Amino acid sequence: MEPILLYDTTLRDGTQGENINFSAREKIRIARRLDDIGIHYIEGGFPGSNPRDLEFFKLAREIEFKHARLAAFGSTRRSGISPDDDPNLKTLVESDTPAATIFGKTWDLHVRQIIGITMEENLAMIQESVRFLHENNMEVIYDAEHFFDGYRDNPDYACETLLAACRGGAAGIVLCDTNGGALPFDVEAIIPVIQQKLKDELVKDGNSTSIKIGIHTHDDCGLAAANAIAAVRSGATMVHGTINGYGERCGNADLTTVIPLLKLKLGYDCMTDKNLAKLKKLSRFVSETANMTPLSNRPFVGKSAFAHKGGVHVSAIMKNARAYEHMTPELTGNKRRVLISDLAGKSNVEYKARELGVNLNANGSSSRQIVSEIKKLEQNGFQFDVADGSFKILLEKYTRQFKPLFELESFRVSIEKDKDQPCSSHATIKIAVGDKKEITAAEGNGPVSALDNALRKALEKFYPGLDSMGLVDFKVRVIDGREGTAAKVRVLIDSRDKDQIWSTIGVSEDIIEASWQALADSFQFKLSKKNKP
Amino acid sequence: MEPILLYDTTLRDGTQGENINFSAREKIRIARRLDDIGIHYIEGGFPGSNPRDLEFFKLAREIEFKHARLAAFGSTRRSGISPDDDPNLKTLVESDTPAATIFGKTWDLHVRQIIGITMEENLAMIQESVRFLHENNMEVIYDAEHFFDGYRDNPDYACETLLAACRGGAAGIVLCDTNGGALPFDVEAIIPVIQQKLKDELVKDGNSTSIKIGIHTHDDCGLAAANAIAAVRSGATMVHGTINGYGERCGNADLTTVIPLLKLKLGYDCMTDKNLAKLKKLSRFVSETANMTPLSNRPFVGKSAFAHKGGVHVSAIMKNARAYEHMTPELTGNKRRVLISDLAGKSNVEYKARELGVNLNANGSSSRQIVSEIKKLEQNGFQFDVADGSFKILLEKYTRQFKPLFELESFRVSIEKDKDQPCSSHATIKIAVGDKKEITAAEGNGPVSALDNALRKALEKFYPGLDSMGLVDFKVRVIDGREGTAAKVRVLIDSRDKDQIWSTIGVSEDIIEASWQALADSFQFKLSKKNKP
Repeated sequence: MEPILLYDTTLRDGTQGENINFSAREKIRIARRLDDIGIHYIEGGFPGSNPRDLEFFKLAREIEFKHARLAAFGSTRRSGISPDDDPNLKTLVESDTPAATIFGKTWDLHVRQIIGITMEENLAMIQESVRFLHENNMEVIYDAEHFFDGYRDNPDYACETLLAACRGGAAGIVLCDTNGGALPFDVEAIIPVIQQKLKDELVKDGNSTSIKIGIHTHDDCGLAAANAIAAVRSGATMVHGTINGYGERCGNADLTTVIPLLKLKLGYDCMTDKNLAKLKKLSRFVSETANMTPLSNRPFVGKSAFAHKGGVHVSAIMKNARAYEHMTPELTGNKRRVLISDLAGKSNVEYKARELGVNLNANGSSSRQIVSEIKKLEQNGFQFDVADGSFKILLEKYTRQFKPLFELESFRVSIEKDKDQPCSSHATIKIAVGDKKEITAAEGNGPVSALDNALRKALEKFYPGLDSMGLVDFKVRVIDGREGTAAKVRVLIDSRDKDQIWSTIGVSEDIIEASWQALADSFQFKLSKKNKP
Repeated sequence: MEPILLYDTTLRDGTQGENINFSAREKIRIARRLDDIGIHYIEGGFPGSNPRDLEFFKLAREIEFKHARLAAFGSTRRSGISPDDDPNLKTLVESDTPAATIFGKTWDLHVRQIIGITMEENLAMIQESVRFLHENNMEVIYDAEHFFDGYRDNPDYACETLLAACRGGAAGIVLCDTNGGALPFDVEAIIPVIQQKLKDELVKDGNSTSIKIGIHTHDDCGLAAANAIAAVRSGATMVHGTINGYGERCGNADLTTVIPLLKLKLGYDCMTDKNLAKLKKLSRFVSETANMTPLSNRPFVGKSAFAHKGGVHVSAIMKNARAYEHMTPELTGNKRRVLISDLAGKSNVEYKARELGVNLNANGSSSRQIVSEIKKLEQNGFQFDVADGSFKILLEKYTRQFKPLFELESFRVSIEKDKDQPCSSHATIKIAVGDKKEITAAEGNGPVSALDNALRKALEKFYPGLDSMGLVDFKVRVIDGREGTAAKVRVLIDSRDKDQIWSTIGVSEDIIEASWQALADSFQFKLSKKNKP
């Protein structure tokens, strides 16, 4: 079987999803991860449509991708002008990417009713636009918008549009189910027909017949993954999708589902085993960057995907995992979870404690009791799997090994706003280090920043060199929003120094209290690294 | 085509989902809604496994379902005893439901390794258990657990287990993909083979050959819906699923997806048009009862399922909805939405302005210029697609139609913390309404809550009755966290009164400033509804 090329459009079609937005720098970080996991094509954006995507392609020029080809997205030329005069096509060339993907119209309804041009002009637009990019040394992938709707209404014309792209020099033709209404058996039946037709016509032309067929599906009928694999089974060799299925309306085909299906269930070569095992982490990274709650029941990579609740299932699995698992969770970087089970909790905590270098049995403490305390905190909104720094401090506290390197005496933060002036914040803080006290004050961009600056200033007296430490990320999530502004809030802070990044957490109905907890843990973690008792 | 029977197991298999729990009375409420929408079978629970399900069946006896048959769920008898002595089977009879569904083992791996009985004893358990329930005047549906795994490993034995159920008097045989690893083409290929085999054997026996074949799928590969419709296409006439796809691990086949697929895409008779149009409401009702956030991108019934973000899409839809919609949203009780975003063009803004009742051409303003101002704000982190309330106010400001119903003079918020005591926050605020000023103060759970309370108190003087308005959700997102605590923050607030829910937004490096913007817009929006100039 021919290897399958993975084409990711999280950074372009993914951002059409409601609430999905990335800054240019966030896009760069995601692109690096996509490259790292072995995605073949990364569609970075639509540079003709917005300044953020232009900025992305500028930043991307500095990056050498190990593996992936970067693609810029656009459309065929406007009607009535030459490709050389089309600003959109010129922007694609200026993006300076190895590949360009352009979409054009397949469906006569769109040609006539929506853009209102002749059927012939549409074919010319496709062929000339592809040729223009091809002649500018780009690998051109042609996206046949509404392919399946167009084919249903007018199969001959739909094929003509594909031929126009081939004649223009397209390296690949992607059949898009733009509206998401296609069904797997239709997709499976149509593709071989198309392939044969293109081949026959191109042979007549004397053109190359090695055209890659791609598939681009949407989940409006809950069939995006089924349609994608149906297409591959019947001859497509390139699959478009997004990480976590982000995308317009019901989303795109989710690559975190399609990749394991192709590789593990259908046996296609599309990613190495080693990279496949990073899939869950990639899914989490993209949802964190998008600040979307990761979907627990997402196939293959979701937190619940291998979680067992029924007692019968759990005891069966202990005899033979195949009894209630369709695959080994570790293949996609996931793991089995047993819900409501103290045993599972205890071994996890013990495992983690070893990793963090905390002796759980110090001072006569019991790991069973520690697990039950942690469960209570997690019930309250704490989430230690993403906050190693705070988790270490917590375990030290429970086992009476905690050595506070500073203590809070008090703080006062005030925020002032006058009419249309921006807010201003300042903080006063008093801390104790051993017997010595220090009181100081600082300003900041908002109350948390003021508090951060004041604490840093106060600690600097006792622990010089703190400026090597910085906060790199600050995330706020409202745990249950239904209480309005009195809802409980979870604050996560990522900090770094030269050697390490660590994460700390705070939870409270008061955002300042939650931020303080995470901030204090972060400084404590940093200081304890340097000042081993 | 034969009509398709819908079998809902939200109340049994659905509750195996992580975080899905219903009380007996909640189950009754859901069962009534399922009956109302025309579901044919409602599986109410597993009365042998827990007291809550026993209570459900007791309560259910008082109810006369208009349409649905209630089913109690259980398993085949234990090995080595007679069905009359099996407490589980007796509980099923005592449930006093018209139907009983019992599961048994299809897969030799389970028979031998997990329960450790002979292959023959398993067949006897199936046949005798079905016969016992049948003789107790129940319609018996036999659930062939792990059918597809069992068939793959040992097709002859898998068929024998089905025949045992038929010989016991089962009215239907349900093929379960218990582990969720089956693929649509396999499902489609296997069913006709099974059907033929059962028919041949039953003719030999001289038994009835009118056995209904059902399908029960799970979403571990993202293919639950595809597998369900593949089964129906190849001969199954009963489909098992849950509302919203709730269920163990990745969930069950989602009936809110499968029903529209069967009816609208494949033309099967399974629900009336009128009932289909209630589907979105049913989905919301079940997610509210389960206290789960409704999934926006759920096919057919999600809030985003017909939401359009791209400007090109919106202008096309205004010409012909088919251009970017695979069906009419109202068929499943949904509706089209137009989102405003930086990918949006003039047509989105115009469409949205009409919807919000703002005249874009008032006072000589130009919609082109407004779009460019909006794009700038979105570049800065504003996101109007999720904040109708702020967007309306913004459009009114741009077109000089904005009538402020109050103005901020100043506020002061202070937060105090002493040692291990929790934080306390209070706010002082001074506002102007026309010529009159008001200064007041309030406390709260954190600074935003204090500010909310103080503003409400100050406004109440001028606009009584504000207590009918409440904040229902409060979301904070750090736009780019790498600046640490000085990062830019986006605050979204959802507010409601008796008639409506509206959303407002604020963006700033200062979380209090951002919250203030969203809060002020929310109150302004509410007041302008009551106090039309």
